[in-house]
Amino acid sequence: MRTYPECIPCQVSFALTTAKKATESEELVGKLVLEALGIVLAHGLDHPPPLVAREIGRRVRERTGVEDPYREDKRRHNRLALELYPQLKERVRGAPDPLREALLLAAGGNVIDSIAMGEVDPSEVIPSLFEGEFALDHYGALRDLLPRARRLLLIGDNAGEIVMDRILVEELLRLYPHLQVSYAVRGGPIINDATMEDALEVGMDRLCRLVSTGDDTPGVILDLCSEAFVGDFTEADLVIAKGQGNFETLEGRGDPRVFFLLRAKCPTIGRHLGVQGGALVLFTQG
Amino acid sequence: MRTYPECIPCQVSFALTTAKKATESEELVGKLVLEALGIVLAHGLDHPPPLVAREIGRRVRERTGVEDPYREDKRRHNRLALELYPQLKERVRGAPDPLREALLLAAGGNVIDSIAMGEVDPSEVIPSLFEGEFALDHYGALRDLLPRARRLLLIGDNAGEIVMDRILVEELLRLYPHLQVSYAVRGGPIINDATMEDALEVGMDRLCRLVSTGDDTPGVILDLCSEAFVGDFTEADLVIAKGQGNFETLEGRGDPRVFFLLRAKCPTIGRHLGVQGGALVLFTQG
Repeated sequence: MRTYPECIPCQVSFALTTAKKATESEELVGKLVLEALGIVLAHGLDHPPPLVAREIGRRVRERTGVEDPYREDKRRHNRLALELYPQLKERVRGAPDPLREALLLAAGGNVIDSIAMGEVDPSEVIPSLFEGEFALDHYGALRDLLPRARRLLLIGDNAGEIVMDRILVEELLRLYPHLQVSYAVRGGPIINDATMEDALEVGMDRLCRLVSTGDDTPGVILDLCSEAFVGDFTEADLVIAKGQGNFETLEGRGDPRVFFLLRAKCPTIGRHLGVQGGALVLFTQG
Repeated sequence: MRTYPECIPCQVSFALTTAKKATESEELVGKLVLEALGIVLAHGLDHPPPLVAREIGRRVRERTGVEDPYREDKRRHNRLALELYPQLKERVRGAPDPLREALLLAAGGNVIDSIAMGEVDPSEVIPSLFEGEFALDHYGALRDLLPRARRLLLIGDNAGEIVMDRILVEELLRLYPHLQVSYAVRGGPIINDATMEDALEVGMDRLCRLVSTGDDTPGVILDLCSEAFVGDFTEADLVIAKGQGNFETLEGRGDPRVFFLLRAKCPTIGRHLGVQGGALVLFTQG
């Protein structure tokens, strides 16, 4: 997806937020926000937005020496989601269609990202995880393909919701025991996206193969990814790409193996998809 | 006031909002937002924020040919506020200290700006106009100076709240009949700031002398203003400068004649003033 004009204020806000997390120097924050404007200008509107986020994240790291400004946030989100795990697991296993419920939950888990910048009371989060249905719903197509699939690649998005991804992986392996599942994380810290550290924190390594994209884009630009990741991507019979960043970078390939699973977090992506902002979607463009 | 890093995402959002009001061409909107980044970069952080808004507003006008993208909003805000006029007037006249009430109301009127982009139900607006007290309160100093003042300049801010300014002017003239009051509007359309057209729409011309700053900055940079305005400013015994833009451009002069009257509309200006975001303030730096 190319960058919409509406994405630009968000990119600038991202630079401000990230810089403020990395340094208390107002002067340096100001410098970084101005440099971010230069980065946005240099990219224009012809690239997917995650590429600009990558460059801004790198610039903040370089200038502040802080490797991961969101590390504490991510730990907190993982902890919060792990506290919810027993309830979520029970909910999925008790549902009429546990796989569908796990998919809804994995998309709904995105909500942790948008609200959990401060301290969050888990009891406030739980109800919103179970709200709604898929506004775009290719669940039937996915379910039809699963019994014949041998390799499935799940591309993760944020910390915190990675716990919901774990429940989804558990359900997939329970229902399709012969499925080889790989779970992909970002190759370096960017925003609150899950990295290898997060995957280990929530125990994903005990369930399935972990692979890093080898790149710190908050999405997947195959030309920038590691050989290992491209191998998993190429050999997969099914790919589930979670979240907005993975959609923005992988959409438009018309690849029938790729299913996008996300909450359309802003009105702009809602408009792009033809759904309301905030809607949950599961779809393939194949 | 210099520009804070926090101001920059708002300036970029302003460019987006203004461009979208002026044209339906997404391509042109994108171009304008990118050009706005260039304008922000060229100014850096050493100028008051309204100067950048002026340049962005001009660029949108030049590229779209739309002279005033906010004209319809301003008309709607004026109409809405005029509907409230009888109630507001009654409230002021019935208050124990009508002048203080009129000042609170004129500061509170800023709320119309922040909520009235869509259609607003007047009954929802009224209560918030009467919320709170001044968090910085130099009312006593202003009241002490008023009986000896001969010329007072009130510098307006937004359309809509100009109706509350009218009530303030009416109260000033009732209590101090010998006071010569001038009311200043922007010299050209910028955001939803009141221009001569708005002053006429709400009947301000029937009460006092109207003067234009002669400039389309959403604030007052004296070097850019008309001779007429600078004359009124120089000769005034008292100046009441309304709203955030007038504060950002006139603060730091240490001029005891100037009283700032505003709602601190964002956390950044709240921090600058040492008050909560959203607080009403009336103060002089003299």
